[in-house]
Amino acid sequence: MTAILDPSDSCVIGVDYGTLSGRAVVVRVSDGKELGSAVHEYPHAVVTDAVPSAPEIRLPADWALQVPEDYREVLRRAVPAAVAAAGIDPARVVGIATDFTACTMVPVKADGTPLNEVPGFADRPHAYVKLWRHHAAQPQADRINALAVERGEAWLPRYGGLISSEWEFAKALQLLEDDPEVYTVMDRWVEAADWIVWQLCGNYIRNACTAGYKGIYQDGTYPSEDFLASLNPDFKGFVSTKLDHIIGRLGDAAGYLTKEAAAWTGLPEGIAVAVGNVDAHVTAPAANAVEPGQLVAIMGTSTCHVMNSDVLREVPGMCGVVGGGIVDGLWGYEAGQSGVGDIFAWFTKNGVPPEYHHAAAEKGVGIHEYLTELASTQEIGEHGLIALDWHSGNRSVLVDHELSGVIVGQTLATKPEDTYRALLEATAFGTRTIVDAFRDSGVPVTEFIVAGGLLKNKLLMQIYADVTGLRLSTIGSTQAPALGSAIHAAVAAGKYHDIREAAAAMASAPGAVYTPIPENVAAYDELFAEYRTLHDYFGRGTNDVMHRLKAIQRNATAPRLAAGVSA
Amino acid sequence: MTAILDPSDSCVIGVDYGTLSGRAVVVRVSDGKELGSAVHEYPHAVVTDAVPSAPEIRLPADWALQVPEDYREVLRRAVPAAVAAAGIDPARVVGIATDFTACTMVPVKADGTPLNEVPGFADRPHAYVKLWRHHAAQPQADRINALAVERGEAWLPRYGGLISSEWEFAKALQLLEDDPEVYTVMDRWVEAADWIVWQLCGNYIRNACTAGYKGIYQDGTYPSEDFLASLNPDFKGFVSTKLDHIIGRLGDAAGYLTKEAAAWTGLPEGIAVAVGNVDAHVTAPAANAVEPGQLVAIMGTSTCHVMNSDVLREVPGMCGVVGGGIVDGLWGYEAGQSGVGDIFAWFTKNGVPPEYHHAAAEKGVGIHEYLTELASTQEIGEHGLIALDWHSGNRSVLVDHELSGVIVGQTLATKPEDTYRALLEATAFGTRTIVDAFRDSGVPVTEFIVAGGLLKNKLLMQIYADVTGLRLSTIGSTQAPALGSAIHAAVAAGKYHDIREAAAAMASAPGAVYTPIPENVAAYDELFAEYRTLHDYFGRGTNDVMHRLKAIQRNATAPRLAAGVSA
Repeated sequence: MTAILDPSDSCVIGVDYGTLSGRAVVVRVSDGKELGSAVHEYPHAVVTDAVPSAPEIRLPADWALQVPEDYREVLRRAVPAAVAAAGIDPARVVGIATDFTACTMVPVKADGTPLNEVPGFADRPHAYVKLWRHHAAQPQADRINALAVERGEAWLPRYGGLISSEWEFAKALQLLEDDPEVYTVMDRWVEAADWIVWQLCGNYIRNACTAGYKGIYQDGTYPSEDFLASLNPDFKGFVSTKLDHIIGRLGDAAGYLTKEAAAWTGLPEGIAVAVGNVDAHVTAPAANAVEPGQLVAIMGTSTCHVMNSDVLREVPGMCGVVGGGIVDGLWGYEAGQSGVGDIFAWFTKNGVPPEYHHAAAEKGVGIHEYLTELASTQEIGEHGLIALDWHSGNRSVLVDHELSGVIVGQTLATKPEDTYRALLEATAFGTRTIVDAFRDSGVPVTEFIVAGGLLKNKLLMQIYADVTGLRLSTIGSTQAPALGSAIHAAVAAGKYHDIREAAAAMASAPGAVYTPIPENVAAYDELFAEYRTLHDYFGRGTNDVMHRLKAIQRNATAPRLAAGVSA
Repeated sequence: MTAILDPSDSCVIGVDYGTLSGRAVVVRVSDGKELGSAVHEYPHAVVTDAVPSAPEIRLPADWALQVPEDYREVLRRAVPAAVAAAGIDPARVVGIATDFTACTMVPVKADGTPLNEVPGFADRPHAYVKLWRHHAAQPQADRINALAVERGEAWLPRYGGLISSEWEFAKALQLLEDDPEVYTVMDRWVEAADWIVWQLCGNYIRNACTAGYKGIYQDGTYPSEDFLASLNPDFKGFVSTKLDHIIGRLGDAAGYLTKEAAAWTGLPEGIAVAVGNVDAHVTAPAANAVEPGQLVAIMGTSTCHVMNSDVLREVPGMCGVVGGGIVDGLWGYEAGQSGVGDIFAWFTKNGVPPEYHHAAAEKGVGIHEYLTELASTQEIGEHGLIALDWHSGNRSVLVDHELSGVIVGQTLATKPEDTYRALLEATAFGTRTIVDAFRDSGVPVTEFIVAGGLLKNKLLMQIYADVTGLRLSTIGSTQAPALGSAIHAAVAAGKYHDIREAAAAMASAPGAVYTPIPENVAAYDELFAEYRTLHDYFGRGTNDVMHRLKAIQRNATAPRLAAGVSA
């Protein structure tokens, strides 16, 4: 353990592992002041086309992999850079905590070595990390859901009635069935959130948050061996041999910084390393929004919604409800939208013509800013469009990653800013669908708090306020998840009794507030009715065209991919 | 009259007035050889944003105007340039004929002066030419259709059960109701096809083709005064005071070139000027495809389908069936797709990012060619998309210009070439819908012949062959409508007895032929089933979201436009 310093001097490190980069922030324990930060972009980003070390091996549609060494590099680069930026003596750092995307899974050997680093496995797609947005396990998820319904599994309603293809069981079953050899060699199936903690402190501790939300761990148990065997006889022992492990409470220490990790980070050996956590869930304390009814939306490439409640309700289409999933002692609800900023980025990359990029460059603004400026002069409904925001599938409330995007109403007069605005609005309608589901299930949302990179878009924030009809406040910190992790680090280091106490002292100051404008609320009510009709038509089985298009797509590319993946 | 020359030496001029330019071609009478041509682009192109002489007056959505002087300029510039390019003595020219977009309407004084050229009217939107794709008269078209159904009007089934907002009556009624003063000042409501002939020969003759297809002229009469009065009491006398006029047969002379027009064109005064015609309809003789069952598709910004038959059938959703509408003595059927090349052009202008434009420029190819090249490597269905090709409304078989585009299936992996290919395919599915309607009504299509600018896209042609399952041949001439007009000029000049005889001698040589590939036909059958489901869902009233979005759009922009149009 490091020497105890004056609390006003103690600092903690929060490290936020996002989809494309890791960000480290140095935070003062006494008041949560952010003293310095640094970002490291993953060199391999998201791997969707081909295996990194074997580019001739193409990946099928819906695959999304990552490379574990990219995560270690964040510790070696972003952490020392953040400490340098803060200008503090590293000896003042008393704890470190991390948060991660989820469900992002690492197949490892018993000592934590990722399989892609095991000699002979670097060219096997299934040896790599499966990123949260790897959506190729949908057939497995479908079977899990069908069987759970058939057997009346008690855990199913806790997840809104549907297990996602993004989660631990579907991804593991896909691995088993696509590449049994990799499955056999794999000793453990580990959340990246826990793997990075393992790298820091040398202990493997499974965090209560992902175990509950992504690992179907409810009331102290997992799905039964009988259930697993019915899915696939070879899957029977999955929990006992590869998954089950000691669960750590959020805010506890998982262990202490090893000599090796101290050398990577430049931090003192032996400081507290907190139990792993998820980017979205650590943001609630960063916003000091851990009371029942406070819905925190972390809006980035995707959006995650987290909310505490003192009651347990089964909300259809939620990601999950987990006791102590956000803070100890309350029921933590999670919902999500698989694509938000990702959709806007896809559009600006693939659907905006040169004139717009030139005009933006001439004005000295980014393309998002330029399109937002054009879109903000429009009346509601002026563009004549309605979009469905399912370009990356739908997490809540349909839990179906075979869904896809729709845009209705384009004409020869439709301009890029029209489509851009329609996509912004579509994601707001997606959020309203979630808010309505909470309300209809007896867990009303009373406050809407936004964190994440998208809060800087004022048009988007006003649209969300107008579409949901809720007062919308934003978090002042631009690095809320890292701050939330830092709060966990402070608790793990023993500086506060629990997360609520630490949050009260260290949470970010609030940012801008957006109030719904009554005439806009009315105008959006009309458009939302159209969204709901299309949502139910395409999403609830009236017309399963999206599923059939995906099947046709898979068949069309099957010969080529078979050649690639099995090569 | 000009002196009679050796027929092998006689030449005729065909002038094709398209949406954006006019093209003149010099053709040898004896064999149809094209000796020279020239194009003049309309300086004002299509006016959709603001009144040309009063830019502060904004136009509502769905408006599309043109400027008549642009049409005269084609006579002054393209005709002499074509004669010069042909290197012939103008004295050899024995006739001139024109074809035009339709239904494109000019409001004129009794002497043919367009109202926008009348002092005091240049700033009135309704004083300008309403281009075929002016779609703002849909409310009027809806009332015409509802009333015709209610009264059981016998002419309605001749138009597939629906009168288009593009046509003479809907556009005139909009004019009356939006700007009664312009309506009162207007002496005649003239097809541009006939107005240009009037400019050439000084005679106003209404051609049988547009009178029948666009003017609801059937079996010698128009809709009754009683019918018109029920639409609007002030519309009662519309036919007798502003529309009705002597009808000229296709291929007859409307008159002879005036001194003034001779001076414009450099052609001999007194040569034959043929009765006006429509771009699509003159193409059938240019392709020598005037026999029953030969469907000619003229594929450009939009597609027009024309086919002769010896039987009269009521085909739901057709544009119309007119006796002698294409050639004298047969029933001429017309169908159409309001947007085809227009949709592709809209996409390349509004939806393709800089990298693609750079890559195309580096390869030295156009953006269409570049996208086509990328799209052509795909398997059918690989892009995972289905689009509806209604960005400019739907002419056949739904006859509804309040419909709009749809694209289903976009994901974060969707690339511009995916969407581009889906749009190509959507237009092919639109054509198949028309072919199926002909078949189901007892007027089977036996041959599919393509003319127009899009035939140069080989991928598109193969897609059309595969989607329709029909052998597809193309016309050899790149200026088929102008050649078709020249054929009419030759008949008008007395060089042949009728259009069939002239077509046999002068028609273009055939171009490339595309044969359906059985496995592609099967793959497209599957995707076409999805198209049909969406087509009926969005187009036949299950979900009228597109109509509602247009209404919301109109309401959203109404205050601004009221300020503009009434200014």
